[in-house]
Amino acid sequence: MKERTRKLEESNAELKNTQITLQESLKKIQKDEEGGKKLQDKLLPPDVVEIGEYELSHFLMPSMYLSGDFVDYFQIDDRYICFYLADVSGHGVSSAFVTIMLKSYIDNLYKNKNKDIFLSPKKIMEDLNKEFLMDSIGKYLTILLGIIDKKENKILYSNAGQFPDPIFCTEKKCEFLTKNSPPIGLFDFSKYDEYEMDCNEDFFFIVFSDGILEIAPGDSMETKQNWLKNLVGEEGFDINTLIMESGLENTTHLPDDVTFLFINKRSEDE
Amino acid sequence: MKERTRKLEESNAELKNTQITLQESLKKIQKDEEGGKKLQDKLLPPDVVEIGEYELSHFLMPSMYLSGDFVDYFQIDDRYICFYLADVSGHGVSSAFVTIMLKSYIDNLYKNKNKDIFLSPKKIMEDLNKEFLMDSIGKYLTILLGIIDKKENKILYSNAGQFPDPIFCTEKKCEFLTKNSPPIGLFDFSKYDEYEMDCNEDFFFIVFSDGILEIAPGDSMETKQNWLKNLVGEEGFDINTLIMESGLENTTHLPDDVTFLFINKRSEDE
Repeated sequence: MKERTRKLEESNAELKNTQITLQESLKKIQKDEEGGKKLQDKLLPPDVVEIGEYELSHFLMPSMYLSGDFVDYFQIDDRYICFYLADVSGHGVSSAFVTIMLKSYIDNLYKNKNKDIFLSPKKIMEDLNKEFLMDSIGKYLTILLGIIDKKENKILYSNAGQFPDPIFCTEKKCEFLTKNSPPIGLFDFSKYDEYEMDCNEDFFFIVFSDGILEIAPGDSMETKQNWLKNLVGEEGFDINTLIMESGLENTTHLPDDVTFLFINKRSEDE
Repeated sequence: MKERTRKLEESNAELKNTQITLQESLKKIQKDEEGGKKLQDKLLPPDVVEIGEYELSHFLMPSMYLSGDFVDYFQIDDRYICFYLADVSGHGVSSAFVTIMLKSYIDNLYKNKNKDIFLSPKKIMEDLNKEFLMDSIGKYLTILLGIIDKKENKILYSNAGQFPDPIFCTEKKCEFLTKNSPPIGLFDFSKYDEYEMDCNEDFFFIVFSDGILEIAPGDSMETKQNWLKNLVGEEGFDINTLIMESGLENTTHLPDDVTFLFINKRSEDE
């Protein structure tokens, strides 16, 4: 019996040591990834930005430290505002890398005032697709990118595979925008389309990453999408309502990154 | 005694379970970071590139999965070749993010044929410095960037804090290039200089990241740098000799990322 106790004590001590070593390794990596998360957070736009009658806001909750989702919006000049929500295949470090490549790409595009391309979402998609195929990084991404024209009160957008379909609501009705092109970085023959939305009336417009579908109630895609539409269609809707109603407020672990991009136009004379 | 054995057995079982959970978490994160490493590797240039009389090669060994060092070289057009070696403060995920921002920035610069800037290392440095201060990502980097002019046989380079000093050797002599400007992303008032190297004679030129100093023998910086110069100054030198002689070949764990960029010019009529 004594022998057995001695062996158990030894094994116990050994296990405790291994546990400490493992915990230290884990802590080191986690600290490193937290640093990465902080940097990624700094690349996101402010939570809420108001430009004239337009208010742009977002919510982003990664499933690991780092996110494969990305969202951005910024003023191009006095007349135009650019916005996008992107979802890179997979999640974690390698997907986060691709979000950074994407942001750098789009930032540089606008900085270099590449006039040919910078007011055409369709052309940006075509260029991005070439870029991602060329780098052969084995990743693809879905992205919805739009340009708000404040003067003409319209939005020109292109949707490269971003799903679920975004929702556009005026006071009269809420509808899914179902027009879609292929994801970026999959095929060299992909064609991209752009569509116009009339923004003369007040509206709100919401884009989701597909992580929301994993936590949406219902078995079928249709049920899940309709749940979203019902949520969004409610009177007095805002992004916080969506976070609360979807249960995200109290969620600590997600199966996939969840992101919303929310655009709201309110006439100033209201 | 029986009670003690029972408790030990319980504690043992519990410890084993914790160990399994910890190992699984660690494995998951490591697998994720390995994916990140693969992506980062894909962004590096080929090990060796020959362009006319010039041969460019590199070696990069990260201290963690991901590297805060980065190296690249590519042909701008028939006449010019661009090369750089950069070292982002820290290492791991967040530093790796910055290397990706840097590569995207420089790639876009050349793609957009920003004529004003793309043949002046000094101007690239000034622009990069503004960029990194603007993003306020709390990271800085050192970088040596040069442009080889094949027609005029000269190299124009700028060194933003890259240390140890790079070494330039012709058949007659080996010397440290000690001219240096401040790192990128630290001060908005930083000024950058550029210098010319005459490449009419055959030469080799080697740039290091500071990780090499951690493993170089000797106590003082001077001893360490001289050890490097002696290694590099040897006849018939190539990058593999450096890897072997510095002991990197048999190293499994490094205190910091170690990178070399090696340029060799051999006249074709030799």
